[in-house]
Amino acid sequence: MKEEFDQTLLDDTNLIEFLTNDSIDQFRDEFMQLHPYDQAMFFEKVEPDIRRKIFHYLSPKEMAGIFEATKFDDETYEFYLKEMEISYAADMLSCMYADNAVDVLNELGKEQVASYLILMDKESAQEIKDLLHYDEYTAGSIMTTEYVSIPETTSCRSAMKILRREAPNAETIYYLFVVNESHVLTGVVSLRDLIIADEETVIKEIMNERVVSVIVSEDQEEVARKIKDYNFLAVPVVDFEFHLLGIITVDDIIDVLDEEASDDYSKLAAVSHMDTFDKGSLQAAKKRLPWLVILLFLGMLTANLMSIFEQTLDKVALLAVFIPLIAGMAGNSGTQALAVAVRGIATGDIEKQSKMKLLFREAGTGLITGLICGIVVVGIIFFWKHDVVIGLLVGAAIFGSIFVATLGGSFIPLLFHRMKIDPAVASGPFITTINDLVSILIYLGLATFFISSL
Amino acid sequence: MKEEFDQTLLDDTNLIEFLTNDSIDQFRDEFMQLHPYDQAMFFEKVEPDIRRKIFHYLSPKEMAGIFEATKFDDETYEFYLKEMEISYAADMLSCMYADNAVDVLNELGKEQVASYLILMDKESAQEIKDLLHYDEYTAGSIMTTEYVSIPETTSCRSAMKILRREAPNAETIYYLFVVNESHVLTGVVSLRDLIIADEETVIKEIMNERVVSVIVSEDQEEVARKIKDYNFLAVPVVDFEFHLLGIITVDDIIDVLDEEASDDYSKLAAVSHMDTFDKGSLQAAKKRLPWLVILLFLGMLTANLMSIFEQTLDKVALLAVFIPLIAGMAGNSGTQALAVAVRGIATGDIEKQSKMKLLFREAGTGLITGLICGIVVVGIIFFWKHDVVIGLLVGAAIFGSIFVATLGGSFIPLLFHRMKIDPAVASGPFITTINDLVSILIYLGLATFFISSL
Repeated sequence: MKEEFDQTLLDDTNLIEFLTNDSIDQFRDEFMQLHPYDQAMFFEKVEPDIRRKIFHYLSPKEMAGIFEATKFDDETYEFYLKEMEISYAADMLSCMYADNAVDVLNELGKEQVASYLILMDKESAQEIKDLLHYDEYTAGSIMTTEYVSIPETTSCRSAMKILRREAPNAETIYYLFVVNESHVLTGVVSLRDLIIADEETVIKEIMNERVVSVIVSEDQEEVARKIKDYNFLAVPVVDFEFHLLGIITVDDIIDVLDEEASDDYSKLAAVSHMDTFDKGSLQAAKKRLPWLVILLFLGMLTANLMSIFEQTLDKVALLAVFIPLIAGMAGNSGTQALAVAVRGIATGDIEKQSKMKLLFREAGTGLITGLICGIVVVGIIFFWKHDVVIGLLVGAAIFGSIFVATLGGSFIPLLFHRMKIDPAVASGPFITTINDLVSILIYLGLATFFISSL
Repeated sequence: MKEEFDQTLLDDTNLIEFLTNDSIDQFRDEFMQLHPYDQAMFFEKVEPDIRRKIFHYLSPKEMAGIFEATKFDDETYEFYLKEMEISYAADMLSCMYADNAVDVLNELGKEQVASYLILMDKESAQEIKDLLHYDEYTAGSIMTTEYVSIPETTSCRSAMKILRREAPNAETIYYLFVVNESHVLTGVVSLRDLIIADEETVIKEIMNERVVSVIVSEDQEEVARKIKDYNFLAVPVVDFEFHLLGIITVDDIIDVLDEEASDDYSKLAAVSHMDTFDKGSLQAAKKRLPWLVILLFLGMLTANLMSIFEQTLDKVALLAVFIPLIAGMAGNSGTQALAVAVRGIATGDIEKQSKMKLLFREAGTGLITGLICGIVVVGIIFFWKHDVVIGLLVGAAIFGSIFVATLGGSFIPLLFHRMKIDPAVASGPFITTINDLVSILIYLGLATFFISSL
């Protein structure tokens, strides 16, 4: 989270020219003035042979800055690292903040990770090894160990000195974490409090003892919510005995929030979050086809079940006309209920209420919306076709479908949540296809019953 | 963004008891130890008569802290303010950071705003009036004027003094913004740089001159993206002549990102983002019905057009069996394309590429996915029904529908974006219903043509 403020208008052509002409000084003059984020954007855009030149012209430490500045696609980390000399890559990883290095290493195979760790300096390698143990998506996996901690008995003057010494390496110096002799977290002091305080004051007197912290095994979404709710710049990570293990900074949390939101969104539409605009048609098709083919088979199941009713459809062809309407309405109301449930789970609102109450609420919502849509349909069909029987039939089917779809749309994610499956997996198209099936069974079942009883 | 670290286990019953017994001291002892966020949670949970007691027991300044700590529902601000004495409410608004006070006032009627502004102290009222001018969703509407600015010629020692003096009022003291005599932004110094620097150094020498700033009229999403990409804690807001007007801090940006993500997600599912778990069935139904009824009419349009093909359906009832499958596949592939496009627009990725190239890409993706799904369907129907003609017909319809739906799913949001309409408005169910219509026209059109040419 170190600050860099350079605003830049990227002049790529110049930079590329310097590289192709091997004008190392001119390249460095221009390039090193860029903000690391803009450096990363340039780095990502150029051809592999240009990139290889960049590795020659920049130190591993400078390269580390570029890798820290942005999140590349998960798949490209391995790609970029393989373009580097192995010792250069290892040096670069040592220079990165441990949490960011771990993010990169997590995308690689075990053997590759081991080969880099051997070449790194011992201290960095050990820090990274410790972090690699933590499960993905936990606080441990996103925390960093580069924080500033001080003993309770330090004076504000010495604390300031420690801060000055640690500033070049710590990820944030705006919070100082106070620990006792067994490294148990006992308080926190913000740099704001520190600079206001008298120099002779002992930290213990100005520190805040009620520290909000997260347990190392806590879910990263949970951590994100705490930082967001409490407006923190960083939150300390502790083990079950409150030993301070690391910190998580707000910039990492923004990435987590962004990832989770994008992930939920993508799943609602049954696309991969890797399916972005910069990929080609073939790659996009590859990401989407698995979903489409699964949904195709589910759709064939619907068709198969519908063929039971072929006789009914043969008798009254008009029935077929309303199939898309009924299936569509079931799909729409199911998706609405699903979205509310998935979002409620994501924001944690759901923890505050009883699940049964929620299902009752959704049942109520389904009854009301179903009833009103059903009545509207009966009206429309009456005025349009002057047909009361078909109207009542379609109306009843819409009512039933919306009710079932709404209830199902909230029940399924809640069930998944309980079973510790990501509720967003029950994506929109998936729920929609299931609801197609159910609603058509309701509709044609009712129709068959009506016809045979006429 | 002032730091407060109190961790709390809320003991509501105690607090409520103190309030009902009018034990003001005991209440304050317990309550003031809570983190403002937790105070806000308590405040929101209790009954109106309890809340009125809280207003008696807390100063307007303390109440301001509660209002700053969290975003209440837009609708409840007016509600809470009306529970207070008008002068108490005005005092509270004066004590809030100007940007947060504006957030609250934006939810009220003009007359009400005026009545509060009259009662406020002049300086706060003027700051708020200035901010109220900015359009919603722009940088100006979310910035605050409580920043620390210093002249270029200040020494680090004096800068530190200014910082100490401003610390109680400024929203962040971790960045110092450097201005010239006409208040034009010329640089920025982080507190990190300041404490490392020698006390005698002049700010001009250590400041960073290439400041990333945002224009006051810039869209808040744009601002959020900058803070996220560059990992800033705050970004300065300037006018077109680079006069420093205010700053936007990272905590406000997290709220913006969260809001935008939740908004896009809700629209994809055609629900209101106000439709949350804590509302009753009736309220939820009210939020969802407008969408459902619109979609119902669209669905009736489909049914209406389908009835053109009643004769065809009458001849071959088996045709009806595949309608949900074809409409479903069109809906699914359209939603996928839509989601990728909406997300590309939201993340700004879209600006980097030509729109035509994107449409070509999606056309390619539609061709590939359509072709493969079409072939799979022909195979399934051949093995299941041993019917080549129906198989080819359904296969062709699936191919055509997926192609058109994919292209439409990306074209419509791009068109909306160009027309400056929020592309997320083209929600999933909306696109799905349109795709139902198109795909069924393709399918039954093909079928009618086949049958008449047999």
